Amino acid sequence: MTTKTGVPSTMTASVLRALGDIALEERPVSSCAPDEVLVEVASVGVCGSDTHYYQHGRIGDYVVNGPLVLGHEVSGRIVAIGSQVDPARMGERVAIEPQRPCRTCAFCREGAYNLCAKMQFYATPPIDGAFCEYVVIQDDFAYSVPDTISDHAAALMEPLSVGIAAAQKGGIKVGDTVLIAGGGPIGVICAQVALAFGAADVVVADIDAGRRELATKYGARVVDPTSESTESLAAHVFIDASGATQAITNGLRSLRSGGTAVLVGSADTIPLSVPDIAMREINVTGTFRYTNTWPIARSLLLSGQVDLDSLVTHVYGIEQVEQALTARDGGLKRIVVPSIRRVDDPAVGGPA
Amino acid sequence: MTTKTGVPSTMTASVLRALGDIALEERPVSSCAPDEVLVEVASVGVCGSDTHYYQHGRIGDYVVNGPLVLGHEVSGRIVAIGSQVDPARMGERVAIEPQRPCRTCAFCREGAYNLCAKMQFYATPPIDGAFCEYVVIQDDFAYSVPDTISDHAAALMEPLSVGIAAAQKGGIKVGDTVLIAGGGPIGVICAQVALAFGAADVVVADIDAGRRELATKYGARVVDPTSESTESLAAHVFIDASGATQAITNGLRSLRSGGTAVLVGSADTIPLSVPDIAMREINVTGTFRYTNTWPIARSLLLSGQVDLDSLVTHVYGIEQVEQALTARDGGLKRIVVPSIRRVDDPAVGGPA
Amino acid sequence: MTTKTGVPSTMTASVLRALGDIALEERPVSSCAPDEVLVEVASVGVCGSDTHYYQHGRIGDYVVNGPLVLGHEVSGRIVAIGSQVDPARMGERVAIEPQRPCRTCAFCREGAYNLCAKMQFYATPPIDGAFCEYVVIQDDFAYSVPDTISDHAAALMEPLSVGIAAAQKGGIKVGDTVLIAGGGPIGVICAQVALAFGAADVVVADIDAGRRELATKYGARVVDPTSESTESLAAHVFIDASGATQAITNGLRSLRSGGTAVLVGSADTIPLSVPDIAMREINVTGTFRYTNTWPIARSLLLSGQVDLDSLVTHVYGIEQVEQALTARDGGLKRIVVPSIRRVDDPAVGGPA
Amino acid sequence: MTTKTGVPSTMTASVLRALGDIALEERPVSSCAPDEVLVEVASVGVCGSDTHYYQHGRIGDYVVNGPLVLGHEVSGRIVAIGSQVDPARMGERVAIEPQRPCRTCAFCREGAYNLCAKMQFYATPPIDGAFCEYVVIQDDFAYSVPDTISDHAAALMEPLSVGIAAAQKGGIKVGDTVLIAGGGPIGVICAQVALAFGAADVVVADIDAGRRELATKYGARVVDPTSESTESLAAHVFIDASGATQAITNGLRSLRSGGTAVLVGSADTIPLSVPDIAMREINVTGTFRYTNTWPIARSLLLSGQVDLDSLVTHVYGIEQVEQALTARDGGLKRIVVPSIRRVDDPAVGGPA
Repeated sequence: MTTKTGVPSTMTASVLRALGDIALEERPVSSCAPDEVLVEVASVGVCGSDTHYYQHGRIGDYVVNGPLVLGHEVSGRIVAIGSQVDPARMGERVAIEPQRPCRTCAFCREGAYNLCAKMQFYATPPIDGAFCEYVVIQDDFAYSVPDTISDHAAALMEPLSVGIAAAQKGGIKVGDTVLIAGGGPIGVICAQVALAFGAADVVVADIDAGRRELATKYGARVVDPTSESTESLAAHVFIDASGATQAITNGLRSLRSGGTAVLVGSADTIPLSVPDIAMREINVTGTFRYTNTWPIARSLLLSGQVDLDSLVTHVYGIEQVEQALTARDGGLKRIVVPSIRRVDDPAVGGPA
Repeated sequence: MTTKTGVPSTMTASVLRALGDIALEERPVSSCAPDEVLVEVASVGVCGSDTHYYQHGRIGDYVVNGPLVLGHEVSGRIVAIGSQVDPARMGERVAIEPQRPCRTCAFCREGAYNLCAKMQFYATPPIDGAFCEYVVIQDDFAYSVPDTISDHAAALMEPLSVGIAAAQKGGIKVGDTVLIAGGGPIGVICAQVALAFGAADVVVADIDAGRRELATKYGARVVDPTSESTESLAAHVFIDASGATQAITNGLRSLRSGGTAVLVGSADTIPLSVPDIAMREINVTGTFRYTNTWPIARSLLLSGQVDLDSLVTHVYGIEQVEQALTARDGGLKRIVVPSIRRVDDPAVGGPA
Repeated sequence: MTTKTGVPSTMTASVLRALGDIALEERPVSSCAPDEVLVEVASVGVCGSDTHYYQHGRIGDYVVNGPLVLGHEVSGRIVAIGSQVDPARMGERVAIEPQRPCRTCAFCREGAYNLCAKMQFYATPPIDGAFCEYVVIQDDFAYSVPDTISDHAAALMEPLSVGIAAAQKGGIKVGDTVLIAGGGPIGVICAQVALAFGAADVVVADIDAGRRELATKYGARVVDPTSESTESLAAHVFIDASGATQAITNGLRSLRSGGTAVLVGSADTIPLSVPDIAMREINVTGTFRYTNTWPIARSLLLSGQVDLDSLVTHVYGIEQVEQALTARDGGLKRIVVPSIRRVDDPAVGGPA
Repeated sequence: MTTKTGVPSTMTASVLRALGDIALEERPVSSCAPDEVLVEVASVGVCGSDTHYYQHGRIGDYVVNGPLVLGHEVSGRIVAIGSQVDPARMGERVAIEPQRPCRTCAFCREGAYNLCAKMQFYATPPIDGAFCEYVVIQDDFAYSVPDTISDHAAALMEPLSVGIAAAQKGGIKVGDTVLIAGGGPIGVICAQVALAFGAADVVVADIDAGRRELATKYGARVVDPTSESTESLAAHVFIDASGATQAITNGLRSLRSGGTAVLVGSADTIPLSVPDIAMREINVTGTFRYTNTWPIARSLLLSGQVDLDSLVTHVYGIEQVEQALTARDGGLKRIVVPSIRRVDDPAVGGPA
């Protein structure tokens, strides 16, 4: 393992110790396995799943049974490398794909490593995430980013990857009509991605006027589902980023025959009308994380087809993780910068 | 229009005059449009949808508002041809694909003519079907069948097409594990088709012991869902031919991650667990009829990969259509032969 | 047939009477079959194939054996409609997809109607094209265009369709690297389309400095193949729009393993290295016209992702067709406007 | 590393020491890395590439620069395991997929690991193969085989995988017509696989009457290309297993429009008519080895859809490798059994 001078042996980590209980701890900095790099964390996005673990202690079958570091939207700089890693990578700015598949099961070997049953994923019990100063990741899951991509944007390549995976799963093609339910960060990212995939008409449905206004800034048309129906839209693809049963039902009805619904939002059990599905040959599916999306994310940022910086409304220091997880001030995307202790006024502006 | 000598000007038709009221009527024999052929009907399979119209007067949005001839699984012989049809077709034995798409809408032009909004389909209100002596169909929807395929088998190329469409939609590949819920005619046909598509393991689940025994004769493994779980099956494809909510729920759980469920049975609204769908990237879809399946059906029959003759358990004459629609004697597939008035004992044996 | 007042019974047509011999003739205006519309021609693009028929009298198996009207890139206005056509279409501005498939063969029914053996295509012997005042086309092959799309651009939706078909055949995806050989009209259109499909890096190779400069105006990177190799490009897709053997050989070598070469240019027999193809699993294919591309073309124009107007460098009247076919003045795209007799100075500018 | 009692520290290996020079050597038995298994070799098929290296010292860019053990079609039994391998695998009968991809490059991560630039492949310089008593392979590339699959058949799952990869690349579907050029081992395997994929009509073209007769035993129709044309065949897929330029040219002409040619044979540069490719939208591609085919191969053997045992015509001991590589006695598939020194009469029969 080659290490940059100045990497300390311990670091500060923000640890979820129990449900609703987050505290700073001093922890050892990991050393690199031969195929790993050590990354000094620059920016970490706050995701709804982080808040969910904090508030509920579980997501589905994943239960927080011990101390857990949250945070899985990560950028930083390589400060140490394992013995098999190209020495030229030392000092490189990187965006992290926060997963470690087994690479040997049938799913991994077929390229669907997101379905690997042995997956280790940041901030998913019992694997620690990145609300801390240093993290390790396998070499090929740390992607070089040029200086024209900011630390925040590099971290947000993770939710961008969610949007890319949804667009891929939906099979969005040039000229398509795409309906997106939900104008939060994922919905707005999906809208940008759908346009980048060549969609001709991207419609975001959200009951919140502010979110609708926001979505228009990224090139989407918007509808208020409480007053307008989308059933005549004949969309090729519907992406649910709302998790709301009514929105999903509306979305399924808004598809043209043969269309595809991709359920990204964390919905529960919904009623599905089989005749509607069968007689119109609707496809209903979901996405679980992503595979091989970072190179695409990088290209979308470099070309300017997607803008992530403008999504950031708040920036916090590592002492403020709990505040970042629980804020209710209408912000869009929050970032934790572990190298900063506190930010006096986390609000930084947001969408232009 | 060229007509074989001896085609009469009127024919006997079995007409659904009102809910539960079927009677014979003498009707004019249609003449052929330039692109049509007139077919003297040989065999007509009885489908669950025929019985449903008889008993309930509607299927979804299709409502029987006037007299309707049922029957859409049809074989016969060409006895007259329109002016644009190849004269060599006179006298040809044919299987009929009982639909007439518009050929100009986006779906038709893309090859998905089953989704054509202007589709005219046999025995679907207000279009008459084939429980009668003669029917017309467009030239290219009447497929030549060799003498090695029986009249009954030629008629049953229609339900075989349903199975082919389901296998295509599910993307069944060589080596796949396929679960089929329901061991009725469609389930047994789907099992045969799945094997013909190369599936390595085809499992039919049915609560009825007789149907399970039947399915084994066509090469399937069977399970009794009341006593055995299929959740560890890790099926690539699940085909529901049962219409039962519990069977669909079981089937979805029996899929491997990334697998596909094709809902063919006429189910109603089911509860769909979004986390199950999303986190395992399950695809849920259905099939509506079929496109371009008759050539494949013919090839499966000629190669012996699929056997349809052994599915036939009862044969009726045209005076016995009501009996055929309502029989409750455990038979599998019933056939009406319009050229026969009555058959004294319709039971003809069934699966070997 | 409903006809707008003022449509004359005869029209002026520019007819290729023999190899190298074009003359104006007065011909009857066609009447509409029930499913056809009559279009008053606005703009007709000049294609290399038009020039080829004029100079050589044949393209492959298509031989000019009698008088032929050339021109197949067409826009105009509907001035008469057949009995089955929606009366609301009268007066509509349209772009014409200049083909008439049989709609009943296996190719047509599967959506691959460009491969229909009975295809009738404008300006392909013995079917007349559009260097004339009026043409008929089937209803669904005349696409409505809004006023924001010019007559010239509407006509050029035909070569745009060639580019769309090439991009579809190559499977261009978001983030891809695409190499295009040839910076003529088709090459430049392909470059724009590749970017619209989300390609991250589009490289046009042309030996002509002027054409290279032009390609950069449409967002492509360019290389001079006489001095720069593209072999390290690792392109996902290579489109040949040059027809040059050396360019194709270079292009195949510039593909990443698993990549696809789409041969659009009219090349002859080329040497193909089987080990290169097999050991890197390269796909080599071509495109023949297009299917269902006009709606996509329209969407690309409306969104501004593709600009066709700036490709037009010369406009001619109907008396000047021969001049348009034979000009050697370095122009890019030439248009004939049949309603004009002569244009004194055809040069109109060209790419911004 | 856990080792079965009785595994010796050295073994006999048949080594290609220089072009045309093979000799037995005593070599150390490898020890297992943590993710590897040690396999006592049971059967090794002789491939044309083995003979090619022996006779020419190179295949394309792969050059024999030092001693090399040939043989890459391998079955055997696990006799030692690395520390990460499931102990239950000790003693297991296995078929070996003889490749070791990097698992981290873009190709590996997308599931196309056969295109990995860092691939290490048995019997491809400088990686040793299996004409020896023991080999190591990574755990997941050693596939369990049941006792109903013979050692010879298990070894021949490698060429069967070539056939499966060709069928997958060609997209063979139920009902397809498939033309195969060449009735050698690969051609006959491809014919069986094509039928297993559901092809309705499989035609093998070979100039040798004996090979044609053989192909008919596996369900193919046959043609003699010197006296019969296949140009009217309208095949969906053409697989070249001959390597002959004329056969490839014939095969391309025998495809229906939109069809696919898969070049498996080791041909050189061929002339490719671009108009033929483009105007009929023919796809020309090749296959390089395979990915994830062993589970499919196993399923085809277990179902009886493919028979490999009957392909074996000769069996040799390890002292007879040179004889096996150079025999010219009309045999089909030769096997080396490294645990045997010599077989007096290698001929064992062959196709039933």
